[in-house]
Amino acid sequence: MKAFYSDLQIEHKPNYFIANGMKLPNPEVPGRIDILMAGARNSACEFESPSDAGLAPIAAIHTAEYLAFLKSIHARWSRIEGSSDEVIPNVHPANRTDSYPKSAIGQAGYHQADTACPIAKHTYKAAYWSAQSAIAAADAVKNGEPRSYALSRPPGHHAFADLAGGFCFFNNSAIAAQRLLDHGLKPAILDVDVHHGNGTQGIFYSRSDVLTVSIHADPARFYPFFWGHSHERGEGDGTGANLNIPLPRGTGDDDYLEALANALERIGDNASDVIVISLGLDAHIDDPFKGLSVTTEGFARIAEAIKAINLPLAIIQEGGYVSSALGGNLTAFLDGTI
Amino acid sequence: MKAFYSDLQIEHKPNYFIANGMKLPNPEVPGRIDILMAGARNSACEFESPSDAGLAPIAAIHTAEYLAFLKSIHARWSRIEGSSDEVIPNVHPANRTDSYPKSAIGQAGYHQADTACPIAKHTYKAAYWSAQSAIAAADAVKNGEPRSYALSRPPGHHAFADLAGGFCFFNNSAIAAQRLLDHGLKPAILDVDVHHGNGTQGIFYSRSDVLTVSIHADPARFYPFFWGHSHERGEGDGTGANLNIPLPRGTGDDDYLEALANALERIGDNASDVIVISLGLDAHIDDPFKGLSVTTEGFARIAEAIKAINLPLAIIQEGGYVSSALGGNLTAFLDGTI
Repeated sequence: MKAFYSDLQIEHKPNYFIANGMKLPNPEVPGRIDILMAGARNSACEFESPSDAGLAPIAAIHTAEYLAFLKSIHARWSRIEGSSDEVIPNVHPANRTDSYPKSAIGQAGYHQADTACPIAKHTYKAAYWSAQSAIAAADAVKNGEPRSYALSRPPGHHAFADLAGGFCFFNNSAIAAQRLLDHGLKPAILDVDVHHGNGTQGIFYSRSDVLTVSIHADPARFYPFFWGHSHERGEGDGTGANLNIPLPRGTGDDDYLEALANALERIGDNASDVIVISLGLDAHIDDPFKGLSVTTEGFARIAEAIKAINLPLAIIQEGGYVSSALGGNLTAFLDGTI
Repeated sequence: MKAFYSDLQIEHKPNYFIANGMKLPNPEVPGRIDILMAGARNSACEFESPSDAGLAPIAAIHTAEYLAFLKSIHARWSRIEGSSDEVIPNVHPANRTDSYPKSAIGQAGYHQADTACPIAKHTYKAAYWSAQSAIAAADAVKNGEPRSYALSRPPGHHAFADLAGGFCFFNNSAIAAQRLLDHGLKPAILDVDVHHGNGTQGIFYSRSDVLTVSIHADPARFYPFFWGHSHERGEGDGTGANLNIPLPRGTGDDDYLEALANALERIGDNASDVIVISLGLDAHIDDPFKGLSVTTEGFARIAEAIKAINLPLAIIQEGGYVSSALGGNLTAFLDGTI
């Protein structure tokens, strides 16, 4: 299977994040890359560096204001006396319609939804190339590959059009889906990360041209909290084009696969002709986030169920954190799609 | 002058806040109380404890969901393993219309706009009595006093109907204004704190019955960043009933008084029959926030200009932080109103 990764992606090296009022080590470590790459190679992935498709496919999803922010904020933040090494927001608007400030502190709060998306010197560059990997995976499928894999790290599905969050900066899956749409295909996005794909939902919430489906731990008591509830079905033209399937904490393989069958039925009804998979591996029982209880064998079964609907797959890496099972979960999933 | 303060207000003792990514000592210290009380007594204030008007006047401004949150969150937060002593939010919705989660972490992010409003064990009680002091000051004016003072600490003007922020939990000035309105009077709120009264603006933004006017350091590069810009004029029924006068950093007495003259003209045009003063003293040149450069003599002139329009005044304490000038600034202001 064609697989994409750029060495520049490793240069995002966040030190910590703030959760529950405490400064903690950031689990979205560069070390995930080696583990995921080994897992993908065990499934016969052949990696290549993505070509540079430029900023246009990213700007098709993210606002110009947000792009300018991500590119400039670390240098501006560093000029604030006594500021932290990484940009961490501390003051937020109540609504996106509130006024847009000039200050670095204000803009950080406007464009960063939480304290889990610290921006360091090379974050923009790493996120840019993570998106390029996703674009290359989309292009490969467009060019006839039945499936492709992007080792997109930093991940993307918590990033909205103008808002970073949850380790994510550019929404790689949304960028890939838009790329496929622009190639004349009709994509659906299926998000199997343990966390709801809130950014992806937000980006397409008013649109009917990209069906978004997410299966995840119930956000009533799990990140991202404010999104991923089943009543969120889209709005305006997009009403009905967003499907959330929240699962109780600790849900295992069989119940997960039942939910997946519903998700795939919805995708089938939509007459999609390509699926972008937002592939989080953190629904695994040993993942540090402890949301769901999918097994490694379960990931194989999930992939086989997806394969059975017989559509090309652009598989975009999302979450999944360091545990002894991480690499094997990726191998099992990718093997299952073949 | 009648003045109100309850000993229970001192029990909110925040340790720190997070700004620029760093944990810093919280400037909204209980020690402000002694300084302000001495300053008020030097202006012949006679303090009494407010009677308990109950929750109804607070619930007239704040949502039931928010009241339940403030009352319960510290105990619920404390049950989270490894959580900080004080409730500090780390993940926020993008809009108030996003879904409302059940978890303590999610609700903290929903109801706390920033990391400068830490909630400790006695915060609810202290904020409750801070609001009662403001209610008592409103009642005193209604009962014929020409002016009254509430040592409302914690302060209130950054609190929205369902959102804490910037050291504020209950919006004491909004509660006082609503109380006066319910007594059949027509109040205007004049906010002279160095920071824009964003919560107050938000609470009355769609209403025409309470004119809100704020003079403050330009929020383009100053807290609260997202509000306080001159184009924010109210909406719906409230269009035109909100006036923001942002001033350049470092503005001194003469230019401040010119802005104040415009504010007072607007209040005069409104045929208000009582003014609620949101009295921040942090526009002073020696205040640690360094926003504006008003002098102690300037506060006397501000008060005299307000007095000249000859309306009863309910004076509600907002910000103003520890410096050698703080107590004298309060004395100068209160003396100027007599």
